[in-house]
Amino acid sequence: MPTYQLYYWPVLQGRGEFVRVLFEDAGIDYVDVARQPTENGGGVQALLAVMNDGIGGVVPYAPPIIVMEEQVVWQTANVLQFVSRREGLVPDDLYAQARLHQLQLTITDLVSEVHDTHHPISTGLYYEDQKAEALLATQQFIDHRLPKFLRHFELNLGASFEPDAVTYVDLSMWQAIEGLKAAFPRAMAKTLPDHPKLSALHASVAARPRLAAYVASERRLPFNEDGIFRPYPELDLLPSA
Amino acid sequence: MPTYQLYYWPVLQGRGEFVRVLFEDAGIDYVDVARQPTENGGGVQALLAVMNDGIGGVVPYAPPIIVMEEQVVWQTANVLQFVSRREGLVPDDLYAQARLHQLQLTITDLVSEVHDTHHPISTGLYYEDQKAEALLATQQFIDHRLPKFLRHFELNLGASFEPDAVTYVDLSMWQAIEGLKAAFPRAMAKTLPDHPKLSALHASVAARPRLAAYVASERRLPFNEDGIFRPYPELDLLPSA
Repeated sequence: MPTYQLYYWPVLQGRGEFVRVLFEDAGIDYVDVARQPTENGGGVQALLAVMNDGIGGVVPYAPPIIVMEEQVVWQTANVLQFVSRREGLVPDDLYAQARLHQLQLTITDLVSEVHDTHHPISTGLYYEDQKAEALLATQQFIDHRLPKFLRHFELNLGASFEPDAVTYVDLSMWQAIEGLKAAFPRAMAKTLPDHPKLSALHASVAARPRLAAYVASERRLPFNEDGIFRPYPELDLLPSA
Repeated sequence: MPTYQLYYWPVLQGRGEFVRVLFEDAGIDYVDVARQPTENGGGVQALLAVMNDGIGGVVPYAPPIIVMEEQVVWQTANVLQFVSRREGLVPDDLYAQARLHQLQLTITDLVSEVHDTHHPISTGLYYEDQKAEALLATQQFIDHRLPKFLRHFELNLGASFEPDAVTYVDLSMWQAIEGLKAAFPRAMAKTLPDHPKLSALHASVAARPRLAAYVASERRLPFNEDGIFRPYPELDLLPSA
């Protein structure tokens, strides 16, 4: 089995965590490059070099980026699909792959909307410069968007969940729920129990031995205020209604 | 060749236009269901029925949605990849497919950020209720995000553009540039000429006979204030610097 090199920010979960979780759960050999010692070619400068100069003439848009031999792949959902197809972790059938991928791309949308709760005006400004707008955006997210996403995933992912056929989509859903619980504990405590199939998926994935071992290890970074899912107490809102 | 049914909002280009453009350019037989007469099962109610009740037990997240025999596929980038793989419009090679798809997902990001220029606080509120924030968000977009996207596409898509091997990604890039020119004519007039390879791609794709015929037809809807790329004069900003 080939070794994948993962390039991602070394101090946060972020979008890279969806890739780490797949590698860890599937037992795929990988190196988290920027978390290696600087003297071994690691550190954040290894990531910045790839982002600025590219690899073999290819300049990726943004991390997470994986490099394997001469191949360079980025965009989270694309990385997950690429690795899963390459490693035989999804069915060979085109329609089966499309059905999985549309769920993953909706998780991508969810992640992006969660990011925008604390950065509604621009990703180029600090959270501190858009706190008033973040409060407005978060209330809208909690009231309207979160319920819509959870209902969709309950219906399409929870309902079709098969513990013996876990894919990158189930793993990403687990990670997304973990993140939502970290960022919005009050709203999630109120809402998640109304989604029994999604709750069952979350519990079932969490119990997978390799994933559980990863979560208990030092390799798993905590959720923090640099990632996508940020535990800001002032944005831990309840639904208005 | 099978007939694809496209379900999308009948009065706007939006994300559905990326799918229409692929079908039209490739000469693929499709029905734009919601734009058919109501008495033939068309109209916006046909779209709403699929969104609310699903098809054959499958409830999609959002349009564009395509239905083909028993198969239901959504998420724009996923639809484009699915149709292109199914119709043999992309190479069979996994890595070649991933390289295309990561560019398409970055176009998805661009489209989403353009949407958020006029809806920074929430997609659930009217533009009129977030105009002040939209002005802030648009200035940030024009100053920081648009140049970053264009530079990336110039390097990765313009530089590798082959007029004889146009894929869904080139077509989407053409449509994105059309949209950016409609929404931000002043910024694009200033910035696009600095991207000669992207400009050449745009011109080359526009000259393709089937695409040109589509654009000249009644099937091509104009950009308007219901779509993603909205010609709001007050948001047609120039770069600050």
